[in-house]
Amino acid sequence: MDLIVGGGVVGLSVAWRLGRSGAKVTVIDPAPASGASHAAAGMLAPVSEVSYTEEPLLRLGLAGLSRWPAFAAELEADSGLALDYRTQGTLDLAFGGDDMAALEELAAFMDKLGLPVRRLTGRECRRLEPMLAPSVRGGVLAEGDAWVDPRRVTAALLAALERAGVPLVRRRVTELVRDGSAVVGVRLAPPSPGASTGLPGPSAGSPGDVLLGERVVLAAGAWSGELTGLPVRPVKGQIMRLRSPSPLLGRCVRGMVHGSPIYLVPRGDGELVVGATQEELGFDTSVTAGGLYELLRDARELVPGVTELQVADIVAGLRPCTPDNLPLIGPYGPGLALATGHHRAGVLLAPLTTALLHGEEGELAALCSPQRFQTAGQGSI
Amino acid sequence: MDLIVGGGVVGLSVAWRLGRSGAKVTVIDPAPASGASHAAAGMLAPVSEVSYTEEPLLRLGLAGLSRWPAFAAELEADSGLALDYRTQGTLDLAFGGDDMAALEELAAFMDKLGLPVRRLTGRECRRLEPMLAPSVRGGVLAEGDAWVDPRRVTAALLAALERAGVPLVRRRVTELVRDGSAVVGVRLAPPSPGASTGLPGPSAGSPGDVLLGERVVLAAGAWSGELTGLPVRPVKGQIMRLRSPSPLLGRCVRGMVHGSPIYLVPRGDGELVVGATQEELGFDTSVTAGGLYELLRDARELVPGVTELQVADIVAGLRPCTPDNLPLIGPYGPGLALATGHHRAGVLLAPLTTALLHGEEGELAALCSPQRFQTAGQGSI
Repeated sequence: MDLIVGGGVVGLSVAWRLGRSGAKVTVIDPAPASGASHAAAGMLAPVSEVSYTEEPLLRLGLAGLSRWPAFAAELEADSGLALDYRTQGTLDLAFGGDDMAALEELAAFMDKLGLPVRRLTGRECRRLEPMLAPSVRGGVLAEGDAWVDPRRVTAALLAALERAGVPLVRRRVTELVRDGSAVVGVRLAPPSPGASTGLPGPSAGSPGDVLLGERVVLAAGAWSGELTGLPVRPVKGQIMRLRSPSPLLGRCVRGMVHGSPIYLVPRGDGELVVGATQEELGFDTSVTAGGLYELLRDARELVPGVTELQVADIVAGLRPCTPDNLPLIGPYGPGLALATGHHRAGVLLAPLTTALLHGEEGELAALCSPQRFQTAGQGSI
Repeated sequence: MDLIVGGGVVGLSVAWRLGRSGAKVTVIDPAPASGASHAAAGMLAPVSEVSYTEEPLLRLGLAGLSRWPAFAAELEADSGLALDYRTQGTLDLAFGGDDMAALEELAAFMDKLGLPVRRLTGRECRRLEPMLAPSVRGGVLAEGDAWVDPRRVTAALLAALERAGVPLVRRRVTELVRDGSAVVGVRLAPPSPGASTGLPGPSAGSPGDVLLGERVVLAAGAWSGELTGLPVRPVKGQIMRLRSPSPLLGRCVRGMVHGSPIYLVPRGDGELVVGATQEELGFDTSVTAGGLYELLRDARELVPGVTELQVADIVAGLRPCTPDNLPLIGPYGPGLALATGHHRAGVLLAPLTTALLHGEEGELAALCSPQRFQTAGQGSI
């Protein structure tokens, strides 16, 4: 039995993939699909997401993107649910001369990588997306980029797991249980009063008890550091969902406004996602007046028509961030594997993460190996 | 039996006052205390609320304010609930030279009325309220102004009515029922499925039925026009509640920012209310990106520290507005009285409204008489 700690997009994807390959798995999460995956916009845009100095992250992102078509098709078939997976690309926009120079750098970089890219004048941008502000001076269309609705993805994963009979334990994990240096299970916090424990049948044990397994896969996002001592820290993102009677945009648009990046992601059902702040405030998920103000101010600069839209949802999530911005994926001592630290790329890298844990893509796996942060005091391989 | 149509701050106040004077009353509202009263900030600030050309409204407001201390004390005693009624005044702020001139006009006008007023420099304003922006150039403190938490007021009224055994019928009124020219009752919409009808005992009748009474008091806010043909229209206000670990302000502050009025109302529990937009959009209560943006932008100009506060609540309400901005209070044909059209002053005027319906304050009652809009085709006195 593999115990998957964490029911976000990464943990659920890992559980789904393991389950499909015949392994016995259990997912443990007090509130599945409610953390960073619930907040995420779902852009699958590896190139415009990273700076050109972060080449390892770019390679991971491109590998992640290439796995999405098959992942989406399989998951839709297995769950019977649509993911709103779309492939019309990302439009990066420039307002001033500095922005234009940065965009040209981006385009040249994509050329070098052999990725499909189109340089556009302001007028061409507005022909593509008529709701863009008149002040948009030019843009770069990353035609290979895609996006997906992360809430539909986690709902589909939960449905597929339920169909497959994978148990879901709605409890918080307080610590990893070890036998010598080997991880042999997890300790569960007492269930909250009145909550169904979701423990699987007679092997369940009593409240506060221990669940034993052959392997623990830690996919606990921003909370992964607390359970392992690894340097995973929360980076807060506030994000807003607007509702539009008819779609304002046909594709994702991004830009720098007042020095901060802003993006708008349209859904098939008229939802428009506006994100996101990046704040280092520890485990704080409050929605603040200042965060909201910045999102609204910057979104208006890109697409003035957003002011007419209804505010449907405002949430904050915590991205799990590592010191080198690369995820932690792979074995981390006997009985323990990690699938965490995905920072802004949890949705993009979820399909790749399952492959890496399966031992595929050896070269990329080396980039993500948790061993790079292993200190003397912690368990060895 | 008096039938009070509408369970906002006005309808509940009327019911409470009538009940205390020994009358038999029933309140009818599908969702009491959820409309404009739920959105309202609760400023009791008659002078700074009106332009100097609206003297009748000013006289009403001052009369309303003068009744609040006794109303608050009685309601707190009768309900056992605190209203967060506070009397530290309103601080009107100026940023530029034009604002300063307008403020001096306001102060001179208050002098003329014999109202307590203090002219303050920017520095004096910040001494009073240290969180104000450095760009505040001066202010006027209306020392007689007060404020109250409207949600506590309606909760207290509902509690007092329940204690007094006043029935509350949670149904929508679709029309007034007439016998000749006299109003003799109201027709109720069928109850929503699964809802408790709240109808009082055996006299209840079947769904869609009629409730009969000696008098109908219409206090249906923005919906009053639909039931009477009177010119009452909805004016939408979006308003935001922030949460502060410690209070940012000691009193209400107001100002003109980018040509639109903004106010901040502090509560004893750390809540800070930021309001409000004024939009003529019919019966639309959506919270929009543009409305939110304006509130946040303008609040930051007055009190930059609001950016740190948590967003607790955002709602939109519909103010019931008449062509001359004065309310409609008093008899309107046999069997019918009105208590509606209070626009921005429902909370301020609620105590006065009960007095006017009681036949007190004859001179003010004439200002509010619904007869001023009576046309040939409608019922006569």
